[in-house]
Order: sequence, then C-alpha cells, then structure tokens
Amino acid sequence: MTNPVLVEVTRGPLVESRHRGAVAVADAEGRLVLAVGDVTAPIFPRSAIKALQAVPLVEQGAAERYGFGDEELALACASHSGEAAHVAGVERMLAKAALDPSALRCGAHYPISQAAAAAAARAGAPSALHNNCSGKHAGFLCLACAIGVDHGGYFRSEHPVQRQVRAVLEDFTGAVLGPDVCAIDGCSVPTWAMPLEKLAYGFAKFGTGHGLAPERARAAARLRQACARQPWYVAGTGRFCTEIMERFGARVFVKTGAEGVYCGALPEQGLGIALKCDDGAGRAAQAIMAAVIARFLPLEPADSAALAPFIQPVLYNWVGIEVGAIKVTAALA
Amino acid sequence: MTNPVLVEVTRGPLVESRHRGAVAVADAEGRLVLAVGDVTAPIFPRSAIKALQAVPLVEQGAAERYGFGDEELALACASHSGEAAHVAGVERMLAKAALDPSALRCGAHYPISQAAAAAAARAGAPSALHNNCSGKHAGFLCLACAIGVDHGGYFRSEHPVQRQVRAVLEDFTGAVLGPDVCAIDGCSVPTWAMPLEKLAYGFAKFGTGHGLAPERARAAARLRQACARQPWYVAGTGRFCTEIMERFGARVFVKTGAEGVYCGALPEQGLGIALKCDDGAGRAAQAIMAAVIARFLPLEPADSAALAPFIQPVLYNWVGIEVGAIKVTAALA
Repeated sequence: MTNPVLVEVTRGPLVESRHRGAVAVADAEGRLVLAVGDVTAPIFPRSAIKALQAVPLVEQGAAERYGFGDEELALACASHSGEAAHVAGVERMLAKAALDPSALRCGAHYPISQAAAAAAARAGAPSALHNNCSGKHAGFLCLACAIGVDHGGYFRSEHPVQRQVRAVLEDFTGAVLGPDVCAIDGCSVPTWAMPLEKLAYGFAKFGTGHGLAPERARAAARLRQACARQPWYVAGTGRFCTEIMERFGARVFVKTGAEGVYCGALPEQGLGIALKCDDGAGRAAQAIMAAVIARFLPLEPADSAALAPFIQPVLYNWVGIEVGAIKVTAALA
Repeated sequence: MTNPVLVEVTRGPLVESRHRGAVAVADAEGRLVLAVGDVTAPIFPRSAIKALQAVPLVEQGAAERYGFGDEELALACASHSGEAAHVAGVERMLAKAALDPSALRCGAHYPISQAAAAAAARAGAPSALHNNCSGKHAGFLCLACAIGVDHGGYFRSEHPVQRQVRAVLEDFTGAVLGPDVCAIDGCSVPTWAMPLEKLAYGFAKFGTGHGLAPERARAAARLRQACARQPWYVAGTGRFCTEIMERFGARVFVKTGAEGVYCGALPEQGLGIALKCDDGAGRAAQAIMAAVIARFLPLEPADSAALAPFIQPVLYNWVGIEVGAIKVTAALA
C-alpha cells in the first residue's frame, strides 16, 4: 500500500516538499487504537528502541553493580548531542567497569550539537565518546563485564549481549527477529526490522509493565524513571526528546531513531507509539510524534501551547526571515 | 498524481526508506524526451538555477568590468563548500566592486565541508563568506554596482537586480513568475516556482544557446565554460557537481538545489534536465541525476565506472562497515 502524506513543508504560498509515513498506537494487549498507513510492514527501529536495548543492563544487575544513577541510565537510552556532560557521563560509565573509551566500537562522529561540534573541532577532533550512541555502547560493555563474558565483539549479533537484547525485543514486541530482518546499525550493533504495530505494542508494555515478567517490568520502570528525571541526558540542549520529557516528565516517554523513526509511550493512557516516515526524514517524524502526543494525552492550555511549535514549526532562513512551515496533514487529524 | 518511487535505500536484506519524485528531460524546442512523474506542478528550483541567476552579471558587462575570470564566474553559479579558496574568491569578487563582506545579506552558516567547518570553528565562527550562496550574492552586488543602482536591498524581489533575474528566468523557461509562485530562499533572495518541464526546457536553452538573444546566448556559454574549467568553485572537494564536471568538462553542466532539486544540461545532446524528490532528499536527487546522465550521455567504459558509485552508492557506517546502498529504481530505467 502507498502510505499517506502525513507532513507538508511549505515555502511562501506553496507546498515545497511532502513526507509520507505510517503510525501505530497500541495498548499493552496489542490492540491498535490508531493505524495510519501500513503498520504491518517491517521497519528498522534504529535508535528509537535504545530504552529496550538497555533493559538487560538493569535486569541483570549490572546497573546496580556499577552504581549507575539516573544520568547513566538515561545515557544508556540516549542519542545524545555530544555535549560536555554527555561525554563525561559516558566516560564515567566505562570507568566504573574499569574500561576506557578504547573499548567503544561505535565509531567517532562530530557531535549532533553544533556548539559541541565546534568545541570538538577546537579541541582537535571528535572521538567515539562524541558518537550519539556512546552511552548505549557503554551500557553494552558494562553488561558484558557484569555477566562475566569477554566484551570483545560486544556489538556482534552472536555475542551474549546482543543475544540478550534480541530476546528482550522479541519479548516486548512479539516479533520473531531472525537473520531475514537483521541489518547493521550506524553504530555497528544489529538492528532488527519489525512492524510498527508490534513496536507500538512493545512500547505500551514498556510504559506500563503489563505482560512483562516482574524483573523486566521493574527494569522498564527504572529506565523510564531515569529518562523522566534526566531527559537532557537522553538527547541534549534544545532537542525534541529532551524538551518533551522535561515538560511532561513521566507522562511521556519519547525517543528518536535514524531514518524517520520515533517510538514512545504514554504510561497513564497505557499506550505505545511507533511511527516511520517512508523517506527517513527526521523533521517530519518529529512533527508527527508531537501531533500524536497532542491527540492522545490530555493537555492543559500551557501544554498545548508548548507542543504547537513542534506540530507546526515555522521555518526561518539564515538571516531569520520566516520562509515557510512544517505542517502535519489532515491524514493524522 | 502520486509520483513514483525513484530511489530505494536498503539496509541489510530490506529496503529501509523510499524516495518519490519527478524528472523532466527536454530539448531546446521544449519537447519532452523523458517525463517521469508530475512534470507540470510548480516546484521551487532553489539553488539549482544559480547559473541562470548569474546571466545578467555577464550579459550586462559587470563580469567584464570587474575582470572576473573562470573562478569568479563559477563562484557566482556555486553552492560552494566554504573551503578556503571559495571564501577568498568571494572576498576578491566583492573587493573588485569596492565592497566588503558586510554588504552580503545571505546570512552565515557553517561550511558544507566538514573540514572547512572545523577550520571555521577553530578560527572563531563562520561568516557570510562561508554561506554556500556567497558567490551568487557577490555576483548580485557586483551587478548592482556595475549598473549604477544602490546595492542596498539587492536581495528583494522589487530590486532592479532581482527584476533582471526574474526576466531572465522567464525568458529561459517560458514560465510566468508572479507573486503567486514567489517565496523566499534560504539566502533571502526570491525563489519562483515553475514546472519541471519548463525548467528542463530552460536548461536545454542554457546548454545550447538555442532560442536566446545573441548576448544572452553568449553569457550562457561563458558561464558554462567557467563552470567546466573550474568545477571545484561550483561546489567543492568530493562534491557531486564538482566531480561530474571535472570528469565530463563541457559535456555536462549540473547543479544541485535545496529540497531535492537538480538541474543540468547535456549541450552535445541538446538536452536540459530538471528533477525533484517529493520529500526534499538530496541523496536521492543526486542518484537520480547520475542515472539520467548515464541514460542520455554516450559513455566510455571508464565514464560508466565513474558514474556507477553515484547511481548506486554503497552506504557505510561510522566504522566503515557496509550497511546498505542507495538504488535508483526501474521507474527510471
């Protein structure tokens, strides 16, 4: 099926670009309360499931053993901006397992934050600590150390760490994650494709604990609590995930992924959310997620006002002149 | 109409993202030799028409008056990467009209080139000279000075410079460019929307001179010559426009624009090309342009081999592992 246009980008009097996509919202029984577009085709969730990938770290006792607090757990769930405190936090996680940054296999890239990128350039060049996935990788390394396995190759699908992650993903989503849906993510760990409807179901379980073993439900609750308390560590200054969780606290969990993916949970409503833009556009995925939150979460006027600039962001050019807007279409109304 | 999927982005065993779009290839009589998708809807050409925007600079004698050579003329047509020689070239253009960078109204942004961006960070912060459009703006400013009008407000649609640009665009394309299709570009100059079929026709005329007044045809030929001789100044190190024109010289003119637009000309074939991805994705637009060149330009085996990595680029992650590919679909075959 052809997914509907969910977002239009205007310039002056015309629509300049269009983004198609699909959205699933489900409860923890797997019932769909919203399905727009094809929610059955497998999509790669990429970084949008980092919180699920972090579940074994908590469940196996590694986080407790190394004394991880909210900041470290939020970093394990993060696509961080590479700002100074993100980098320091990841280094701290590694040090607690007697590791140093040379253990990271995520690769280096310039920080997502432009200010942090400029700082990295002034200091020399970015390292693996600046990689937006370095907190997740530190979590994987600490899990390997805590369960007593060689951390070498921790990013490979056959390593015990990734086997645990896959089992957790299958448990949350009910999807069967075989080699036919396995690819390599930007940071080298496996990414398994699954339908949006199953991802949304998995995040409803993540948000409520419903249908999970007690230890697993406790791990999910602890990770949600950490992200709600330290949302800056999940993304960074001015980022959508951070601003939304700063405003709504434990009422909204939200996480971005590459190629136009967002996942989230509304624990009080018992709902999970998963969406993807066909073309991989993050600008559209963010607007869609904001619109879905506004639709399902009861909002005070101040909350609505705070969400509005994310649902319909005004676009400015390099000198600050308003040139257009990003608009969620009636297909989501 | 719904435009076809022209590009698929794979990851491991699956297609991860899809890009729809439309392509027009026309001759200088306005006959379409290829039309894929909707080539009649108006689209904003953005920076893909910088070479047409530079025509008045040459036609009115401003380029000659200020002694502009190939480098300066290529910069007037450029979306440059902000590398040192780009910045120096634009400053040189301004100095010839007794202007300095404070006259630029394009705004500042970090250079497109990551190495140049790091250098700008180390030197302090980027200036308007680093803006990818600064060469075009220097050309506009020099035109204003040469024709003896106040250069203040040179970026506004009612300024004599932009009125000349609009008249040139209408002459090349046959489109009527009124306020109903006028928006503001990222660098603050007007951008007028027009159908891909008319853009392709305009670039066939640009590539051949056919149907243009003699002075205008000479200006177009001079600009093509400058870009063919100095393609590095049109984009920069490793960029598609530069690499294609370095390889094919005067046989191919090609220029990227924001939001997934490409325009080009194959002068020996008498053809003009215009395309846009619906979603604004540059990665897909570039692959489509490479495929269109390969389809219409007679190629030696070495040329085909050089184009192949642009038509189907392999995607690597941060540590250099192959994770997928960008593939032009059969809709363009």
